[in-house]
Order: sequence, then C-alpha cells, then structure tokens
Amino acid sequence: MRAAVMRGANNLVVDDVPEPKPGPGQLLVRTIACGICGSDLHFLKFAEEMVALGEELGPLSAKLDLGQDIVMGHEFSAEVLELGTDTQAAVSVGDQVVSIPAMLTGSSDPNNMIEPIGAYSNTYGGAYAEYLLLSAPLALKIPDGCDPKHAALTEPMAVGLHAVNRSGIKAGEAAVVLGAGPVGLAVISALRRMGAEPIIAADFSPERRKLAITVGAHEAVDPREEPAIETWRRVDGVKALVIFEAVGVPGMLDQAMKDAPRAGRVLVVGACMENDTVRPLIGVGKELEIRFALGYDPFEFASTLNAIASGEIDVRPLITGEVGIAGVPQAFKDLGKPDEHCKILVEPALG
Amino acid sequence: MRAAVMRGANNLVVDDVPEPKPGPGQLLVRTIACGICGSDLHFLKFAEEMVALGEELGPLSAKLDLGQDIVMGHEFSAEVLELGTDTQAAVSVGDQVVSIPAMLTGSSDPNNMIEPIGAYSNTYGGAYAEYLLLSAPLALKIPDGCDPKHAALTEPMAVGLHAVNRSGIKAGEAAVVLGAGPVGLAVISALRRMGAEPIIAADFSPERRKLAITVGAHEAVDPREEPAIETWRRVDGVKALVIFEAVGVPGMLDQAMKDAPRAGRVLVVGACMENDTVRPLIGVGKELEIRFALGYDPFEFASTLNAIASGEIDVRPLITGEVGIAGVPQAFKDLGKPDEHCKILVEPALG
Repeated sequence: MRAAVMRGANNLVVDDVPEPKPGPGQLLVRTIACGICGSDLHFLKFAEEMVALGEELGPLSAKLDLGQDIVMGHEFSAEVLELGTDTQAAVSVGDQVVSIPAMLTGSSDPNNMIEPIGAYSNTYGGAYAEYLLLSAPLALKIPDGCDPKHAALTEPMAVGLHAVNRSGIKAGEAAVVLGAGPVGLAVISALRRMGAEPIIAADFSPERRKLAITVGAHEAVDPREEPAIETWRRVDGVKALVIFEAVGVPGMLDQAMKDAPRAGRVLVVGACMENDTVRPLIGVGKELEIRFALGYDPFEFASTLNAIASGEIDVRPLITGEVGIAGVPQAFKDLGKPDEHCKILVEPALG
Repeated sequence: MRAAVMRGANNLVVDDVPEPKPGPGQLLVRTIACGICGSDLHFLKFAEEMVALGEELGPLSAKLDLGQDIVMGHEFSAEVLELGTDTQAAVSVGDQVVSIPAMLTGSSDPNNMIEPIGAYSNTYGGAYAEYLLLSAPLALKIPDGCDPKHAALTEPMAVGLHAVNRSGIKAGEAAVVLGAGPVGLAVISALRRMGAEPIIAADFSPERRKLAITVGAHEAVDPREEPAIETWRRVDGVKALVIFEAVGVPGMLDQAMKDAPRAGRVLVVGACMENDTVRPLIGVGKELEIRFALGYDPFEFASTLNAIASGEIDVRPLITGEVGIAGVPQAFKDLGKPDEHCKILVEPALG
C-alpha cells in the first residue's frame, strides 16, 4: 500500500509498504482522512531527541527504533474493511469509525497496556497510509450524517477539551490562550463551550486570529501590538485567570509565568521539544501553579466526536487543505506557514 | 544601636545605625533572637538580580534601594519596649512576642497593604539589630513557658507548614524531600505532623540526614548513593507521591520533574535565584503539576508558634549556633558548611 514514511530521522518519503494484517481483537481499516498534527512536524524534526528523552524517562517510548520505517498519522477517520479472527466488535465491516490512536496489547503492566498507533512505535503504523490496524474495542462508529472528514478532527479537538478539563478553569473565569494554531484553537473551542469568559487569544498570524474569533475567542490580539495579559487587564483584570501555553517554543513558559497574576495558573499544552529556561523565583514569588496536559481520556474523546457530529463543534473553518498521500511531504512544509494553513487532511482517495 | 547592615550589594558590615521610633500602630521591640535564613545569604549574594527581578514583576519590591542601608533578619523573637502613640495592642510592654515580618501600611491597595520587615525594604529594618519596629496587630505573645529562642523558629517552621498545605498532600501519602537544610527540615517536620508516610529525605550532608530523621523523615539518603526516588520505589512505590524541591539551585527542578511519576506533583519551596533549565516535554509526557510556595498565612504562623510552645515541634536540634551581632558576618560564612550548621541564632545580648 502507499504510505508517507519516516525513514530515518528527519526524512519523509512516499513509498509502498506492506499492508497490515489484523490479528485477534484488531480491525483492518481504510483511511478516509487524517489530519497532520504539529507534533508530527516536531517529531520529524526532533526524532532523535525525542527517542533519547523517551529512553531517559523509561518505558514510555523505549521500543522506538528510528532505523525502521515509521508511518505517522494519528488524527484519523476510517472505514472498517475486515475483523481479525476471534474478534468481537461493536462496529461492522463498512462502518465509518474513529479511534484513540492506541492499540490494546492485553498486558496488565500499566507501562505496556497500550501501544501508540501512528508514531512512537514501529509496530502499529498510522494513517498517512491507505490502511491501518485499530483495536476493535476502541473503535467508535461515526454518528450517521457526520462527515467523516470532520470526524477526523475528533482527536485534536479532544486535546483541547482535555487541556481545559485539566486546567480546572470554571465557567465565568477568564482565559488567555497563547498561540492559535490547531491546539490553541481546540482549547479556545473547548473554553467557549464550557463558559469561560473572556477568552483572549494571542497569535502573530492575522489568519489564525480570525480563526480564534471564529471558534470562540472574545478577543484575539497580536502580541507585538498588545500582550494578551494587557488585553485581559483592559477587558477584565479581576476574574480568576488561567493562561494556556499552546505555542510550545522555548521562552513561552517563562513568558506565561511572568504574565500570570499572583496565585495564577498556567496550563502547558504546547509541547516544547527543546530545553527551556525559566526563572523559578517568579513562580515562588507569585505562588504559581503549572499544570501540564497530554492527550485525553476515552470519555473526552467520545464526547468530542459527538459534539462534532451534532454541530456543537464546527471544525470546517479549521480545515485549510486536503492532499493525497503523495502530497504529504509538501504539506509538512506548507504547515510551516501559519497564514496559509491550519489543518491539512490527508485523504488517500485523492491519490 | 548596633546592627549587621547590608551596605551596597554583597557587603555585610557591623555598625551603629539610628534607633527606630514607633509610630501609631507600631511597637518598638528589643531583639531576643533572630535566625539567619538561607534567603538572607542568597539576598546578600544576588541583591542586584533580585531587585531587577522585583522591578520586572512590578510592585513586589520596587521600593528597594541598594544604595541605602538594609538591615536583614526576619525570623525573630523580641521583647516589647514601647508602644507608639495611639496604639492599641493585645500585647504589653515587657511581653515576649513573635510576628510575621510585615508592617501593615494602612493602604487598601493589595500591592501595598504590607511592607516587609528585614529585607526587600529600606523602611523597616530587621532583627540583626538591637531594636526593630513591629505592627502592633501582628505581634503574637509567646505562650508562657516557651523559650523565646525556640519561638524565633516560628517563621522558618511556618514556611514548611505552608509548603505542605499548599502541596495538597494527604495523610498516608508519600513524600520525597530534596534537600534537608532548614527549609527541607521544616517541610519534613510538617509532613510528619500531618501523617505523610513514608517521608524520604535526600541530602549530601550526613549531619543534615541525621537531622532529617530527628525531625521525622522515615528514610534519609545520600543521593549519590541512592536517589530519593529509588528509595521511594524500594520502600513504597505505589502511593500518591509529592516531591518537595527544597534545595533551590539550578537543575533541581528538572531533576524533580524527571523523578516524578506519571501525574506526579512537585512542590517548589527552594528559592532558586538563578535562571534554570527545564524540559517541558517531561512535564507534558507525564502530565505533571508544579506548585510553587512562598511564606505562610497568619493562621499557619500562629499555629506553628503554638506547636513549638506545646512541644509538638521540637526545634532544639535545629539550633546549631548562637552569635552576637558582631558575629553575623562570620555566621553568614559558616552557614555555607552544611555539615557544621543548620540554624544560627543572632542574639544581640551576646554582644
């Protein structure tokens, strides 16, 4: 089958790779659409650093071998083609599904219960390919009437919901969201749905600021003209505030800590891959709290799918491009231009 | 009066300075004992950096002028000598008292309601001097029978109680305390009192490890022989864990983040004055939470005084030296040797 393959660190090629075969408890599915995630761009760029960090942290990603092909792509919707032998599933051949990008291994070791699909694993390829395997119990049928291209955004939008849940922000409280890329926009959407107000977004890109307003921000500012924290002081300045760091480049955490009011909270959802410099005394002096967020739980994932299907979350404005598998390497390059793109969908049917 | 004076950044001298006069709402008190705090050593060393940071953060310490004399010393007990005019007080001349090192200003501006006593202020000198001023409503009478030298440790022990309260640790949960200097020991003492178990302390110094056991640690390890997190895995490894960072030098926060288990919490009470390098991806990958703690509230301060007076907290093992004002500069130097000293009390009566 055709796939966009990471072959050695920092190298993305389109090639034919073996088609996967479903084992017991697994589904073979055909990719309908798969969003390109910023973390895939990061991983292509920082693969060796990430593997080293994973090994230092222990079991998290110790199985990853950059000498073998890796097929990324973890924001997907797909059609069920075949059930493995002895597989019980709530979905049937022909159903359109989404899934958390994880394969249940059957192990009871908490470090090995799941294996990632579509990165950080040589075992289970992702959806920058014609076909992939899913864990049958994790596949969720896309509700009737929901465009499966939209359902492919369940994963990134669930990241925003989880970050908001983990932040502990309450309805009526204020939020500053640093960065209006796909993660920041997912956070803004989730904040608006749960009743945060005001929601102030900051991004250098005028297009992304427009998207921030579209998905629910009350204000969207260019931080070179007015820092978001100043906007908060201007339009509010009194409510409890959570600052969401959704940029993920060095210096942003220090900036968020400096901006935060006394006893403020910073939720880090931007995954900075590099070493970063902070001033702990700023945290001490203001008694800050920093929470980091990663991923989502199965309930957050399912509720996000249902919100997209019901129209509560409108993901259409976020989709700025659609390419076939052959177009993946160029799409990775194009996503570096924030004024042109937000989310590009890979659709193998496009060639 | 005699005082140990910071005269220009990084310079500590003993000299005669003017005796303060109590205004309305103020008490003139005679210093009985004042502990030398690690933060004073830090401040003497990093005064200019701290002033710059304070100015960047806004109102916190904008009033500090390093060109004027600064008398430090904020861990004190004292005897009331005189009440200012029109001063209502629950204490009387002759009473032995302690106080939060803060002067009420009468302002309703939250950034200016209090002014620090004994550092970060040119206005109110601290207790490395024969006399100082206190705010009458904040003075707490030392309970009868309590040695005022022991009561002088109310302040540093309250820092430990506050850090434990702010950490959210519950009775029966596990704690790793990195650093068994005065702050780490205060944390250990507070952890033992609230029922954390096991409490694992780490320090390079054998003397400090002994003190850690004395004040309540279940294990005290040399991190060069066994990292504290390994000790936790060996003796527990399953309970919810909070890691207390009580060292305050660059690299410790990254170490604590690396050590923390998934969804772990790090409480930073060591005040690292320098820039520090962290790897945010470690925080994201394990969904860590970092809380910073500073100071204490009036209830924590008062309850600590009462616990010292009742004998629930035995501070005697922590007191490793007593000097007169003339001995302060040498004591600052001596405190750099962790195997010889923990807490040195300055007692002007000693000369």
